Amino acid sequence: MYTINSLSLLVEQFQRLPGIGNKTAQRLAYYVLNLPENEVKKFTNAILDAHKNLRQCKICSNLTDAEICSICTDPKRDKSIICVLTAPKDVIAFEKTNQYNGLYHVLNGEISPMNGVSPEDIKIKELLDRLKDGTVKEVIMATNPTIEGEATSMYISRLIKPYNITVTRLAYGIPIGADLEYADEITLGRALNGRQNMI
Amino acid sequence: MYTINSLSLLVEQFQRLPGIGNKTAQRLAYYVLNLPENEVKKFTNAILDAHKNLRQCKICSNLTDAEICSICTDPKRDKSIICVLTAPKDVIAFEKTNQYNGLYHVLNGEISPMNGVSPEDIKIKELLDRLKDGTVKEVIMATNPTIEGEATSMYISRLIKPYNITVTRLAYGIPIGADLEYADEITLGRALNGRQNMI
Repeated sequence: MYTINSLSLLVEQFQRLPGIGNKTAQRLAYYVLNLPENEVKKFTNAILDAHKNLRQCKICSNLTDAEICSICTDPKRDKSIICVLTAPKDVIAFEKTNQYNGLYHVLNGEISPMNGVSPEDIKIKELLDRLKDGTVKEVIMATNPTIEGEATSMYISRLIKPYNITVTRLAYGIPIGADLEYADEITLGRALNGRQNMI
Repeated sequence: MYTINSLSLLVEQFQRLPGIGNKTAQRLAYYVLNLPENEVKKFTNAILDAHKNLRQCKICSNLTDAEICSICTDPKRDKSIICVLTAPKDVIAFEKTNQYNGLYHVLNGEISPMNGVSPEDIKIKELLDRLKDGTVKEVIMATNPTIEGEATSMYISRLIKPYNITVTRLAYGIPIGADLEYADEITLGRALNGRQNMI
């Protein structure tokens, strides 16, 4: 088969990224090739720098440039409430709502025996350590609404019980802007069960 | 807004790639962050190497690692026929058919007054230079079936006329595997005009 060495190596590398197939990888490769040299440097440096600088916050395990992340060090955040998430990108999603002023705890995974992820593989011990001094009054479980996510939440809430702390979870229901017709029956059922008084 | 410096720089860089939106850029960034260091190096080196090594073939303007591309130097290729393409990726598409054994000429663009691309901006002069010694007997115009592509083909074929060389173009018609119902009327009309004897 006809190949150009450096090009196919580059396409191969792009193709390893999640959700990038052969055609897209080719398009990305040609795009990068046509960039001016300083732009290419900027791109590769952003990758190398991020990979070098980003680490897990010593307190909440969120991604951070520093020892402790900017949320954990922010004196204006409410230290009595912790929102438990499975991945750092969920922190960004929550911060975008502008409706939450507490702290986070990023598990960096979900318990999943199928995939060989046991409770010790995610940051549960670190979460329990944070609850010991009595500052935290509420823990919000905000794992994904999947079997693994639910199981992880259940497991953790049972561990929190002895601490005498309120454990809540996100409301399930119809997503805003969606058409009822397209809601699946499980979501609709949960929305019905969780119905609230309007007046 | 809440941001992590190195992370948002990285997301920003991914987002500049064609067809990559904010969500995908974020997913790619997290993926890259979770790669082992040597894999990250491999990725950035593939980009830098490709950008440094790849250049245009001195003869056909296709992308190549060397002075002259592997197709132009291949003694087994038929030197009497040149297929004219707009972009290097089209060469790869043609090579995949395994049905063409001639040479290529990559214009690296299409004439498009709207986008400020005039005939001097693409490799037309270089094509005409290749026709002067009389080796080439046929030129296949294989530009894109768009207004710009057609105009480019028309323009070039008029320039080739004095050389007394056969100029052909790709057949238009129904793509294989497609449903007639979904063919647009222009394609269908072209397919009708270009109908061929079956027996």
